[in-house]
Amino acid sequence: MDKLRKHIEEITPVSDIEFEYIRTFFTVKKVRKHQFLIQAGDKVSCEYWIANGAFRAFYVDDSGKEHILQFALENSWLSDYNALFHETESNVNVVCMEQAEVLCLSLFAREKLAAELHKMERFFRVKVTTGYTAQQHRIISLLSQNPKQRYEEFENRHPEIIRKIPKKYIAEYLGISRETLSRLYPANRRE
Amino acid sequence: MDKLRKHIEEITPVSDIEFEYIRTFFTVKKVRKHQFLIQAGDKVSCEYWIANGAFRAFYVDDSGKEHILQFALENSWLSDYNALFHETESNVNVVCMEQAEVLCLSLFAREKLAAELHKMERFFRVKVTTGYTAQQHRIISLLSQNPKQRYEEFENRHPEIIRKIPKKYIAEYLGISRETLSRLYPANRRE
Repeated sequence: MDKLRKHIEEITPVSDIEFEYIRTFFTVKKVRKHQFLIQAGDKVSCEYWIANGAFRAFYVDDSGKEHILQFALENSWLSDYNALFHETESNVNVVCMEQAEVLCLSLFAREKLAAELHKMERFFRVKVTTGYTAQQHRIISLLSQNPKQRYEEFENRHPEIIRKIPKKYIAEYLGISRETLSRLYPANRRE
Repeated sequence: MDKLRKHIEEITPVSDIEFEYIRTFFTVKKVRKHQFLIQAGDKVSCEYWIANGAFRAFYVDDSGKEHILQFALENSWLSDYNALFHETESNVNVVCMEQAEVLCLSLFAREKLAAELHKMERFFRVKVTTGYTAQQHRIISLLSQNPKQRYEEFENRHPEIIRKIPKKYIAEYLGISRETLSRLYPANRRE
């Protein structure tokens, strides 16, 4: 939980008493590699904060093809926000790629925490704003960049993901075929 | 300004005294058709709330091709959030498509308002969360749907945009070539 406090305090300071209260809203969950945190069709009741481990969130289209929405490493927040906030069934899957410990925050707890502590309202606003601007960047990239540009930019922006996540998933996230990626980067890179 | 109050109260009630205070943070700006609200390379100092009129936000890639990020009709919020929050130069353009009146809220005013009134912090959190889930939906659509599916779904979700915005811009937003769109929808539709 100390890591969570450090993470919150990157946005806003919290007192010992406040943090003792904040921590009561979270429950700890351990997740094994290949285990699903969310499956398409589930009701989504929680947002997750990744204390350690790695996840990918993906959508499966009607033809069975997987499309990656997000990688989440430690210190990231993750959920199907559409399903969470609209209280609908998820249309995405979230699977564990590396043994993990996550903190679960239910929608009810999240809203209560934000309502009771203005600084936590601010924390969540800043976090979702960061996610929003990152998505805008991704949309521009999907619409306007060629595969090589997309891969190189991603490599510069997210070296920690490049280190941790197999290349085939990164290609999928970037909408690049594995063949194109192998052509662009044939040498000594992690497959 | 009454419309703004109604818009805020869709998320949170505000008292007369609170709204009198909130309104002081906004300045009114009239914008003519074809006029730019933001130009690539500008410093972005404001978020805009569209009281009436229509705008499109677009990115121009290195080859000069335009990629549409957003349409904004009345009651929408609009800015280059990446440039606004990081206080960097914009890489998008926002142009007026139909004579408009907008309310400008500077980043400083926005942060002050959110810090002073917890309910406005909540308002902005809810708004950006809605934008975030809409963008997630768009990313899934760009990655997994064919042009016909993208157009049909957009038509169902945004009938007001279909009515107001020329079809060529909608095609551009959806990443559909004009030729493909004309093939899919040859008859009696607005060009």
